[in-house]
Amino acid sequence: MKKQKNENKAGKVKIIPLGGLEQIGMNITAFEYEDSIIVVDCGLAFPDEDMLGIDLVIPDVSYLKQNISKVKGFVITHGHEDHIGALPYILQQVNVPVYGTKLTIGLINNKLKEHNLLKSTKRKVVKHGQSINLGCFRVEFIKTNHSIADASALAIFSPAGIILHTGDFKIDYTPVFGEPADLQRFAELGKKGVLAMLCESTNATRPGFTMSERTVGKTFDTIFNEHRNNRILVATFASNVDRVQQIINSAYKYGRKVVVEGRSMVNVIGTASELGYIKIPDGTLIEIDQLKNYKDEQTVIITTGSQGEAMAALSRMASGLHKKVAIKPKDVVILSSNPIPGNEKAVANVINELSVRGAEVIYQDTHVSGHACQEEIKLMYSLIRPKYAIPIHGEYHHRMAQKNLALSMGIPKENIIMMNSGDVIEMNEEGWKNTSHVSAGGILVDGLGIGDVGNIVLRDRQNLAQNGIIIIVLTLEKYSGQLLAGPDIVSRGFVYVRESEDLMGEARKVVLNSVEDCMSHHVNDWGKIKNIIRDTLSDFLWKKMKRNPMILPIIMEVE
Amino acid sequence: MKKQKNENKAGKVKIIPLGGLEQIGMNITAFEYEDSIIVVDCGLAFPDEDMLGIDLVIPDVSYLKQNISKVKGFVITHGHEDHIGALPYILQQVNVPVYGTKLTIGLINNKLKEHNLLKSTKRKVVKHGQSINLGCFRVEFIKTNHSIADASALAIFSPAGIILHTGDFKIDYTPVFGEPADLQRFAELGKKGVLAMLCESTNATRPGFTMSERTVGKTFDTIFNEHRNNRILVATFASNVDRVQQIINSAYKYGRKVVVEGRSMVNVIGTASELGYIKIPDGTLIEIDQLKNYKDEQTVIITTGSQGEAMAALSRMASGLHKKVAIKPKDVVILSSNPIPGNEKAVANVINELSVRGAEVIYQDTHVSGHACQEEIKLMYSLIRPKYAIPIHGEYHHRMAQKNLALSMGIPKENIIMMNSGDVIEMNEEGWKNTSHVSAGGILVDGLGIGDVGNIVLRDRQNLAQNGIIIIVLTLEKYSGQLLAGPDIVSRGFVYVRESEDLMGEARKVVLNSVEDCMSHHVNDWGKIKNIIRDTLSDFLWKKMKRNPMILPIIMEVE
Repeated sequence: MKKQKNENKAGKVKIIPLGGLEQIGMNITAFEYEDSIIVVDCGLAFPDEDMLGIDLVIPDVSYLKQNISKVKGFVITHGHEDHIGALPYILQQVNVPVYGTKLTIGLINNKLKEHNLLKSTKRKVVKHGQSINLGCFRVEFIKTNHSIADASALAIFSPAGIILHTGDFKIDYTPVFGEPADLQRFAELGKKGVLAMLCESTNATRPGFTMSERTVGKTFDTIFNEHRNNRILVATFASNVDRVQQIINSAYKYGRKVVVEGRSMVNVIGTASELGYIKIPDGTLIEIDQLKNYKDEQTVIITTGSQGEAMAALSRMASGLHKKVAIKPKDVVILSSNPIPGNEKAVANVINELSVRGAEVIYQDTHVSGHACQEEIKLMYSLIRPKYAIPIHGEYHHRMAQKNLALSMGIPKENIIMMNSGDVIEMNEEGWKNTSHVSAGGILVDGLGIGDVGNIVLRDRQNLAQNGIIIIVLTLEKYSGQLLAGPDIVSRGFVYVRESEDLMGEARKVVLNSVEDCMSHHVNDWGKIKNIIRDTLSDFLWKKMKRNPMILPIIMEVE
Repeated sequence: MKKQKNENKAGKVKIIPLGGLEQIGMNITAFEYEDSIIVVDCGLAFPDEDMLGIDLVIPDVSYLKQNISKVKGFVITHGHEDHIGALPYILQQVNVPVYGTKLTIGLINNKLKEHNLLKSTKRKVVKHGQSINLGCFRVEFIKTNHSIADASALAIFSPAGIILHTGDFKIDYTPVFGEPADLQRFAELGKKGVLAMLCESTNATRPGFTMSERTVGKTFDTIFNEHRNNRILVATFASNVDRVQQIINSAYKYGRKVVVEGRSMVNVIGTASELGYIKIPDGTLIEIDQLKNYKDEQTVIITTGSQGEAMAALSRMASGLHKKVAIKPKDVVILSSNPIPGNEKAVANVINELSVRGAEVIYQDTHVSGHACQEEIKLMYSLIRPKYAIPIHGEYHHRMAQKNLALSMGIPKENIIMMNSGDVIEMNEEGWKNTSHVSAGGILVDGLGIGDVGNIVLRDRQNLAQNGIIIIVLTLEKYSGQLLAGPDIVSRGFVYVRESEDLMGEARKVVLNSVEDCMSHHVNDWGKIKNIIRDTLSDFLWKKMKRNPMILPIIMEVE
């Protein structure tokens, strides 16, 4: 480090988060040094409540496209959607190689296959402890723990110094699969001197230490032991391979067969099992159609839908819409996850539906987080002792909470950098500066359309959703401007039609009067006529009903 | 009781919940004996996420209207919206007297004033320990504790036996205002013999005992003590008068002036203060405009918006839209409430906005629930020892949790009655039976319209919200069926227009082709033409964009 510093006194590394700081999800951060750019992660976000009809949100990568010749590759920390989900969209615009650990690349491969991009994309599997060279940068993958196997922190060696990106992590001293986080390597890097640490903040408001994944296994054993006469269903995140492993362990221990249900669950478990990240004893897994050959108390169904997602297997089972599994009285359903903020109501609805069908629902002590709590974040600061701290991954108040932790660990206030997406920070040992701002933020995906739904369309959808629409059509004669047909009034989402015949009759009269008024005053600018119709009808409806539907006048012209 | 039983061997009391069992809110239960009906509570519900554009939901009281001559009055347990909010709507259909304790009637009066119903409604204030006679029934108000002062359980004396309705309650041995719950009276009634208990279930899944309201006061003192140099804002439920009292106590203790902000907060505190339910030391309360005359650290602002409601004062302060208060760095904001399920994301957004403006947000140990946890529910069962148990107030899984508590307390399974809204239960000492079902459930209120938005309108709104609308207009000549104008295509909420000119051009061609096809095949049934247009365009858009907008063809006719 010291050597490098001397050699490149003026050299500065740029850090440019292109998403992920204003909302959960859509993690993507570019690191730039002279002619080299590397990009850490490429995640998607799920739409906010007010993004009506939007399927998902992907990052704006204009900056990468403008600097495409510099971009050396995507370096991926782990295989969650908010870190890999946008790859199939972004790789079509920025086609560079993708680097990650084995399971991460396995899950990316599944996505690329779906989007027919497998052939056109270079991928490379990296092992923990290994480094890759990308232009000016060398990137080392360091073992961490998380709610998905094969998660990595990244040590990014640049001529300006070492930058440590934690990825999403927790410290699990007794992980279900593989090794604990490589604390020794973190300490070693810390000793060398780390210029900056980008550390995740998801649980930075929570005191204490996140419990080991193994504690959930113990809960499963207890539940399996106490419900030897019931069928057991367990819903969890498809990507939490270790969780699934523990369910399978308990099932095997208590002599049950296991069915895996839900498309994403089948995909992930398939990949994890192929790559050796999950061990399923022979004869334990059965097909869903074989369920009928076993007694209820001999089976376990592992399923998606722990977040109450309407289309997931558990919701369909709960509402009686699943083709192969119906919830029965005596069933025991374990929800092995906490609701992600915003999903609480959907989860409560599923719990209710399961209860109404007579199932017992268990959701206490059946989950641990995959993210570091305050003591683990402090541990990371103790090991790394970075010069600069950049809290990432979390809403603003989570990142502020990490800032306070960093302060308490002795990082000077002026060395803690609160960034916004699009900010360009340049730094070296001498200092840091926010030098510019590039285009960043979310691009909305609706069906096959990318970016064709923007604020105007969303505002229209919100208005339509709240109030419905009234359409007024009239046909005018081209030269005379005489009314040939209409005004006809059609409404959707406004009011139940049968009950509103009188109302619509009145509304038609109001419109007709205003049109006739226009005629008699020789108003023949269509824009004006439309405005007059809109205003008059809007006034009438607000006075009459205190409602504000979208009003859309359409004028047709006949020669 | 035994006497009554002998005198009325065949007499049965009917219990008819008209709402509140399928969802939170809209509590209303009718009790009927021969020619008498009394109604306990008359609440509203707030709309579910899928009830787009709906302002609130009120109960269907057809049964009361059909039996109007029997209905003796509304008996109200406490002044929360989910127990009194529908009164202004329902009293217009079922105009009978309203009974409640002083604060409850005070809050009802506020509502009736707003709706101009004060003159036409009889109201009577009842004290705890007092009874009122309503036809065959005598109803005694019994002191309980809750997150609003003056809450009551009701002992309903009927010729068929005593029914105890707990209302919403907790057991607070050290309440901030007034007495603890009247456990002695509960015990006395239990000794006499209670036919049935309707007990609330909100916290029936939570072990233990709900903490006393006073514990929050201690937290406030600590926070006030630790932040002597900051302005303090506290957001809580307007109706939680005791909470506001404790904030005022802490403010007074630490020499601060208090501003009350937010319409409902001002209303409730006004009423509570007038009626003697809150004591504000002279000179403590100041107007919001006087804030500028004091240093920040000399003031406390008590405000609405603890649930992240977009229009409430706190949200407006957080987003910079409040006219008189702007959040500043160094401000301390206390959120003194837990998010109601479904509001978590809105609350998180407000916390973020506050953090971005530099405020410290405190939300731990700043709230206690107003509802009984498992040990308090068991205590109530121990005191009352009812013959029949009817869990009320809570989603199905909460009520199931109470069922399990009742079982553990020795109530036989067949005596625990899980009801649905609209069920009619008839019971006496000999037994109970579900004898019929009456119309019940929610009626949607949108603006001034009551019940004019139903499932079809909501489905249209959902479709519009997700996908937008495409309108196709054409003008045909009446006799020839010849196309005179159009097809014109207009869309809203579908896709950003400038980017879609080509698409709309193509769509127009597709429609034109199908119209010309109709012409050449002499299809002149408008319904058929519309269907063909809709199907063709729908196919085209799905193939092209994987989207499904609402398609609305309109045909006009010119002679």
